[in-house]
Amino acid sequence: MSSEKFSATERTKIKTNAIRAVYDIDAITKIMDETFICHIGFLVNNQPFVIPTCYGRENNKIFFHGAKGSRMLKTLGTGTEICLTISIVDGIVLARSAFNHTINYRSVVIFGKAHEINDPVEKTNALKTITEHIIPGRWNDVRKPTDKELNATSLFSLGINEASAKVRTGPPIDDEGDLKLEVWAGVLPLKIIDEEPIRDFPLTDGMDSNVSVPDYIKNFNRKHKNNGR
Amino acid sequence: MSSEKFSATERTKIKTNAIRAVYDIDAITKIMDETFICHIGFLVNNQPFVIPTCYGRENNKIFFHGAKGSRMLKTLGTGTEICLTISIVDGIVLARSAFNHTINYRSVVIFGKAHEINDPVEKTNALKTITEHIIPGRWNDVRKPTDKELNATSLFSLGINEASAKVRTGPPIDDEGDLKLEVWAGVLPLKIIDEEPIRDFPLTDGMDSNVSVPDYIKNFNRKHKNNGR
Repeated sequence: MSSEKFSATERTKIKTNAIRAVYDIDAITKIMDETFICHIGFLVNNQPFVIPTCYGRENNKIFFHGAKGSRMLKTLGTGTEICLTISIVDGIVLARSAFNHTINYRSVVIFGKAHEINDPVEKTNALKTITEHIIPGRWNDVRKPTDKELNATSLFSLGINEASAKVRTGPPIDDEGDLKLEVWAGVLPLKIIDEEPIRDFPLTDGMDSNVSVPDYIKNFNRKHKNNGR
Repeated sequence: MSSEKFSATERTKIKTNAIRAVYDIDAITKIMDETFICHIGFLVNNQPFVIPTCYGRENNKIFFHGAKGSRMLKTLGTGTEICLTISIVDGIVLARSAFNHTINYRSVVIFGKAHEINDPVEKTNALKTITEHIIPGRWNDVRKPTDKELNATSLFSLGINEASAKVRTGPPIDDEGDLKLEVWAGVLPLKIIDEEPIRDFPLTDGMDSNVSVPDYIKNFNRKHKNNGR
């Protein structure tokens, strides 16, 4: 009840449907940890770009990366203001009127300047954070990055200091006069599931064809459970 | 093979991993039709905002809407340049090295100026397009918007004239030297599914408790099939 909250700023204050606003830090963190794709907005010559990318969170920082020289990462290297948005769709809300249809969702927006990470040890740690955020347990299994690979990758962090979330849950809210209509109304829940893992081609002389699917892959949905509706 | 393509512009040209670029209009349209959430990037006082919203497509236009007076829709009413991004995640690509991990995805970016729709008939048609894009068959079942409801809603269209897509499919691509490592490698496919529809509370004196779940809701996944991996 009394957990810490972000202060609403001019950028993060939710004005439309303010009843759906969430500033509670724990609640926002929970949304950030449930998925791993964000959409980053940035400017190039006054033109907004929105690029999807994967991320990892640790403490009060979001980490993301990409090929050195990409438009997004070159731009972010200049210290420009960005907006990083995370959204999860939990269901389609089917009301008795067209107007009252809506979506059950949870979204987070974070504003700030991304900081490029240059130290090789910090870059490796950031890659580990991203990998473990997406599939916890994976990092220890795989070959770690070489200096050459680290040089080919740009890594950024964004402090989670100015953030808010917006959440809609529950059934449709119909006008009272519509409640008598003979129309099916309710929620069609949606969720992301993982299907059977597809093994890379087995190598005739490789060792990997004997490796069974690790538990951390089988248990993927324990972490990324859509339980917010 | 010879279907129509968008011309790559300075804004839409894919520079990083150009092999994943798609300019084919039919292929891009197919991605747009498979989901219904986009992320819209726009500027307010030189600050980028990225807001998730649902959309519908008809011919070469994207339609979206929201409460009149929201920050996004007030800003778009001024005719500013936007970037509308649609993304679908198809799987997590697990390579033998940390560096070669990636995501299988399909994303579309569209640039242009959104146009506000003011005519009530056109507004109703745009709402129908959005509703039918999300759940085909729904529009005929529900109460249509009143003039008052139309007045409370801002509706926008964005021409699909300057667009490109980026698509990654298939297994991990490992360095040859890593192929002998004893590490499980492959793809963990992800998809969005609908779960059992949750009926709104049955009304003791309502007619709707006798209405069974319509086929177009049961068949939701026939339209929104993630089949691009």
